[in-house]
Amino acid sequence: MSGLSRYFPVLDWGREYSRGLLIDDVVAAVIVTIMLIPQSLAYALLAGLPPEVGLYASILPLVAYALFGTSRALAVGPVAVVSLMTATAVGRIAQTGSPEYLTAALTLAFLSGLFLILMGLFRAGFLANFLSHPVISGFITASGLIIAASQLKHIFGISASGHNLLEIIVSLIEHLKELNPYTVAVGVTATLFLFWVRKGLKPLLVRFGLGERFADILAKAGPIGAVALSILVVLAFGLGEKGVSIVGDIPTGLPPLTLPVFDMDLWSSLIGSAVLISIIGFVESVSVAQTLAAKRRQRIDADQELIGLGAANMASGLSGGYPVTGGFARSVVNFDAGARTPAAGAYTAVGICLAALFLTPLLFHLPKATLAATIIVAVLSLVDFRLLAQTWRYSKSDFLAMLATILGTLGLGVEIGVILGVGLSILLFLYRTSRPHCAIVGQVPGTEHFRNVNRHQVLTSKELVTLRIDESLYFANARFLEDRIYELVAKQPEIRHVVLMCPAVNDVDASALESLEAINHLLKDAGVKFHLSEVKGPVMDRLKRSHFLDDLTGEVFLSQFDAMHALAPELAEMAARSLKNRENEATRQRSGFDPSI
Amino acid sequence: MSGLSRYFPVLDWGREYSRGLLIDDVVAAVIVTIMLIPQSLAYALLAGLPPEVGLYASILPLVAYALFGTSRALAVGPVAVVSLMTATAVGRIAQTGSPEYLTAALTLAFLSGLFLILMGLFRAGFLANFLSHPVISGFITASGLIIAASQLKHIFGISASGHNLLEIIVSLIEHLKELNPYTVAVGVTATLFLFWVRKGLKPLLVRFGLGERFADILAKAGPIGAVALSILVVLAFGLGEKGVSIVGDIPTGLPPLTLPVFDMDLWSSLIGSAVLISIIGFVESVSVAQTLAAKRRQRIDADQELIGLGAANMASGLSGGYPVTGGFARSVVNFDAGARTPAAGAYTAVGICLAALFLTPLLFHLPKATLAATIIVAVLSLVDFRLLAQTWRYSKSDFLAMLATILGTLGLGVEIGVILGVGLSILLFLYRTSRPHCAIVGQVPGTEHFRNVNRHQVLTSKELVTLRIDESLYFANARFLEDRIYELVAKQPEIRHVVLMCPAVNDVDASALESLEAINHLLKDAGVKFHLSEVKGPVMDRLKRSHFLDDLTGEVFLSQFDAMHALAPELAEMAARSLKNRENEATRQRSGFDPSI
Repeated sequence: MSGLSRYFPVLDWGREYSRGLLIDDVVAAVIVTIMLIPQSLAYALLAGLPPEVGLYASILPLVAYALFGTSRALAVGPVAVVSLMTATAVGRIAQTGSPEYLTAALTLAFLSGLFLILMGLFRAGFLANFLSHPVISGFITASGLIIAASQLKHIFGISASGHNLLEIIVSLIEHLKELNPYTVAVGVTATLFLFWVRKGLKPLLVRFGLGERFADILAKAGPIGAVALSILVVLAFGLGEKGVSIVGDIPTGLPPLTLPVFDMDLWSSLIGSAVLISIIGFVESVSVAQTLAAKRRQRIDADQELIGLGAANMASGLSGGYPVTGGFARSVVNFDAGARTPAAGAYTAVGICLAALFLTPLLFHLPKATLAATIIVAVLSLVDFRLLAQTWRYSKSDFLAMLATILGTLGLGVEIGVILGVGLSILLFLYRTSRPHCAIVGQVPGTEHFRNVNRHQVLTSKELVTLRIDESLYFANARFLEDRIYELVAKQPEIRHVVLMCPAVNDVDASALESLEAINHLLKDAGVKFHLSEVKGPVMDRLKRSHFLDDLTGEVFLSQFDAMHALAPELAEMAARSLKNRENEATRQRSGFDPSI
Repeated sequence: MSGLSRYFPVLDWGREYSRGLLIDDVVAAVIVTIMLIPQSLAYALLAGLPPEVGLYASILPLVAYALFGTSRALAVGPVAVVSLMTATAVGRIAQTGSPEYLTAALTLAFLSGLFLILMGLFRAGFLANFLSHPVISGFITASGLIIAASQLKHIFGISASGHNLLEIIVSLIEHLKELNPYTVAVGVTATLFLFWVRKGLKPLLVRFGLGERFADILAKAGPIGAVALSILVVLAFGLGEKGVSIVGDIPTGLPPLTLPVFDMDLWSSLIGSAVLISIIGFVESVSVAQTLAAKRRQRIDADQELIGLGAANMASGLSGGYPVTGGFARSVVNFDAGARTPAAGAYTAVGICLAALFLTPLLFHLPKATLAATIIVAVLSLVDFRLLAQTWRYSKSDFLAMLATILGTLGLGVEIGVILGVGLSILLFLYRTSRPHCAIVGQVPGTEHFRNVNRHQVLTSKELVTLRIDESLYFANARFLEDRIYELVAKQPEIRHVVLMCPAVNDVDASALESLEAINHLLKDAGVKFHLSEVKGPVMDRLKRSHFLDDLTGEVFLSQFDAMHALAPELAEMAARSLKNRENEATRQRSGFDPSI
C-alpha cells in the first residue's frame, strides 16, 4: 500500500470501480436503507434523543466511513449498545429532552471520533484486545437485558427510568398504574409480529418458492412493515388522541452542520465515557468486519478501521448525530445483499438523506411502542445465557470474569460493568502467570534430558539443585521465584549449587533482574553458588546490558547437561555409563518434544 | 505449622524463648528506641499530625506485630512514604490541626489494618507483586523529593503547602519573604550535622578504634544527638522567643484507647487511600523482611505478614496512632544490633512508652527545623536517579513505567503517581505478550526437528503451512493469531492445510478458544483444513471440554513430524531419505535444546 492510500483506502478500491460493482452496491444500499430507517429512529429513542438525530447519524458518518474504512461490507450507523451507553453518559450530566442533552450527545460523538483517530494514528488498536471474549459476550447479554427492560415503558405507555436493571424494574412497577391499554395493544402486537417475522416469515417465504437468501433479507425488513402497519392502525382508530404516544413532528431537511463545543468542563466529564464507547464500538465493529472480510479472503487493517470509525464519529458529532459504529446484523445484511465496496455505505447515506427530506411527515403518527418493539426483538436475540454454562465448563477464571461483567452491568450500569470485567480478567490473567509452573529436575539416566523429579526416575545430587521455570520472568512472578529458591535452600542445608534452567524464559524484565540479583546476593551470603542454564539468545543479550553477569557467583551454561557435567561430575559419570548402555536403542528418540514434560 | 500457630507465630518462637535471646533482643530494642524517638516525632510532623501521635504509633502497633508477625528483625512504626501518603489522603478531607484531621488519620490506620488482615486471610499477598520494581523505586525516589521539598518550610521557618512538587516549590517561593534567620541557622546546621554524621562519623569512630558494626549503629543514632543539641541551643539563646518554631507541649501519658469511628462517608472517602497505603506499606515491609530473613536462612510467610501488619495498623487506629509499616533503615539497625525474635519490637514499645511518660517535657524546646532536617537527610538517601539510566539501558518498557511513576508522583501527587505506574507496567506487559513470537516452520532435512523458515534451510510444502506460536494463547493475543493466519491464507491461495504447532502454549483461554473456532470456521469456508500439533496435556484436556475438537476440520497430531507425514507425504519421504543418510552422524544430537530456535 502506498503512503497516501494507507490513510485513504478509497484511492485503492475507487480506482477499479466499475459498472458491475456500482449495481451490486446500489442493490445492497437499498436493502440496508429500508432496514436502517426504523433502526435509526428506534436507537435515537433508546439514546434519549429526538428521532431525527438517528437519521442524521446515518448520513454523513456513512460517507466518512466509505472514504476512510477498509471493510467492504461494514454498515455503520446507530447501534443498540452504543445508544444505551450514550444515554448513560449523557444522562449523567443533562436532562433528557433539554438542548444540553443534545449538545452533550454531539460532543460525545466528536470526542469519541477524536479518540478513535488518535488510537488509529498511534496504532493502538491492540488496546481492544484487552476486552476478552467472555467480557464482551457477558456485556452484550447484560446490556441486551437492560435495553429490553428500558423499552418496556414505551410498550406499556408509562414513564420509567433507571440506569441498571433493578432501578428500571422498580420504576416500571411504580408507574404501572399509568398503563395505557391502547399503547399496550399496539406494543404487544408489534412485538409478537416482529418475533414471528424473525422466526416464522423466512420458512414461509421459502415454502412459497423464494430463494433462501432473498427470504432472509425480506424477513430482515420486517421492522419497516411493522412501522407502516402501525402508522395505519394509529390513523384508522385515532389512537393518537387516545393516549398512544407517537413520534410526532420530525423536522424535514438535511442534517445541520455545527461546530463542536469547546467547553473543557463538558469535555472532561465526557472523555471517560467517550473512551469506553470508542473501544466497545470498535470491538463490535472490527469483529464483524474481520469475519466478513475473511469469508471473501479479504483483509481489513485494524488501525485504519480506527481511523474510519473515528472519521464517522467526528462526522456524526459535526452533523447533528450521536456516536455510531458498525452494526452486526446490518453488516451481515449488507454483505448478503451483495455489497462489494465501502461505496455501498455512501449510497445508503443517500437513501437516508432522501428519507430525512421526504419521509418524515409520514412518520408523524408512528407509535413509539412500535419502535420499542423493534429494539426489544433485536436486542433479545443478543441475550445468551448458555454461554455462561459453556464458559463455566471450559474455564473457571473466564467464567468469573463473565459473571462479574454481567452482574456489574445489570447491577451497577454499563460503564462500571465493563470496567469491572476488563479489570478482573487482567487481574486473573496476571494471577495465573504469577505462579508459574516450575519443577526441580534431574537427569533421565542414559539421556541428556532433564525431567521433573516428582514424575520421573532421575539422577540428582544433594549438593546441586536445578529448578526449571516454565514462564517468562516478570514483575508478577519475580518474588515467587525468590520465595521458591529461599525455601529450597532453607530446607536443604547441604546445597552448594543452585541452577536456574531457563529454556522457557522468553523475557526477564527489570523486576525479575532485581530478584535474580537478590537471589545471587543471598545465596552468596549462604555460601551457595547461583548458575543459569539454557538461557535464550535475546534474554542473554539483555542480561549482558546489566551488572548481573559480572556479579554472578556461578556460571551461565549453554545446556543443562554442561551444568551437570561441571557441577556434579560424579553424576555426569554415572549418567555417561547409562548413556553408553542405551546408546543404540536411543537412536530414534530425537524429536525434542515430549508431551509428558 | 499447626493451625493455631500459623496465625499466632508467637506460639512458635515464644516456646523456645531463652535468657540469651532476651538479652540480645533487649540490646537491639534499646538501640532502635533511641533511633525511633526522633523519627516518630518527625514523621508525625510530616503527616501533619501532633508529635505525640508519632509516639503512640510506635507503641501498641509494635506489640501487635510482635504477636502476629513472622519476621524476626522487622521494626514496625511510622515511615516517611506512608506518612506522606497519610498527609495526602487526610489533607483532602480535613484541615491540618483540626480534630477531624486526627480522626481521619486514626480511621485511615484502622481501615488500612482491616484491609491488610482481609488480604492476609484471603491469601491475596500476590497483589503486591503487581508493583513492579521500577514502579516502586521510581515512586520512592519521587516521594523522597516531595518529602524533602515539603520539609523545607520548617527549615526556612515559613508556611507553605501543596501536594506535588511544583505546588510546594511555588508556595515556598511565595512565602520566602517570611524567612526567619534563626530558624534557618538551626535548620541548616542540623541538616549539615546529620549529613556529616551519616557520611563522616562512622569512618571517624572506626579510626578511634570502634568496631565497624558498633560505629555504624552509633552513627545511626545521630538524630537523637541533633535533637539534644538543638534543644540546648534553643534554651541557651532563647530562640523560642525569636520566632523559631518549637514542638511545644506534648501531652504526657499512655496512648489513648479509642473506638473506631463508624462514619460511612468518612470510610468511603478514605478506603481508596487505605488500600494504596496498605499495598505500598506491605511491599516496603515485606521486601526488607524477606531480605533480612534470607540472610539467616529463615523464612517469612507473606500472607501472615499481611496479618501482622494489619494487626499493627488496627492497633494504631485504636490507640491514637496513624498508619505504620516496617521501616527499611530501622529494621536493618534492629537486625545488625542483634534482634533475634519479634519480641525485640515489644521491648522497643516499652522504651517508647517510657519516653511518652517521662521524656516529653524535655522535648518542649525542640525546634521543628531539627525534625525537618532528620527527615530531609533520611529521605534524600532514598532518591536515586542513576536507576533511571540503568533501567533505560536494560529495558525500555520498564524505563517508561518508571518515568511515568516519577513524573506522575512529582506532578500529580503520590496516589495518582503510583496508580499510573502500576497501570502502565501492566499495560506494557500485556502489550508485549499481545504480539507473541511466532514463526512459520519447516523440517530440518535429515532430522525430526522443525525450525523457522527465515533462519534455517528447511523443507516446506506449498499446500501445507505450519505456524509455531511461542506463547500461551489468551485474550490479549487471540486476535493477533487470527490476523496472522488470515494474512497467511490471503497471501498464499495454494494452501490446503494450516497446522498450528503449540509446544510453548501453556494455556488457551475462552477468548483464544473462540479465535481458534473462528479460524477453523473461516478456513473451512476457504476450503483449508486446520490442524494442531504438539498440544500439551493440560491444554488438550481443556480443549476436550469444548466443542472445538468435534468441529475441527483437521486433526490434532502428537508431533509435528506426524503432521508432516500425514499431510505432506512427499515431503516426509524426502526428509526420510535425508534422514537415512545422516543417521549415524546424528546419533549424538539428542539434547532437546537448541539455543538458536
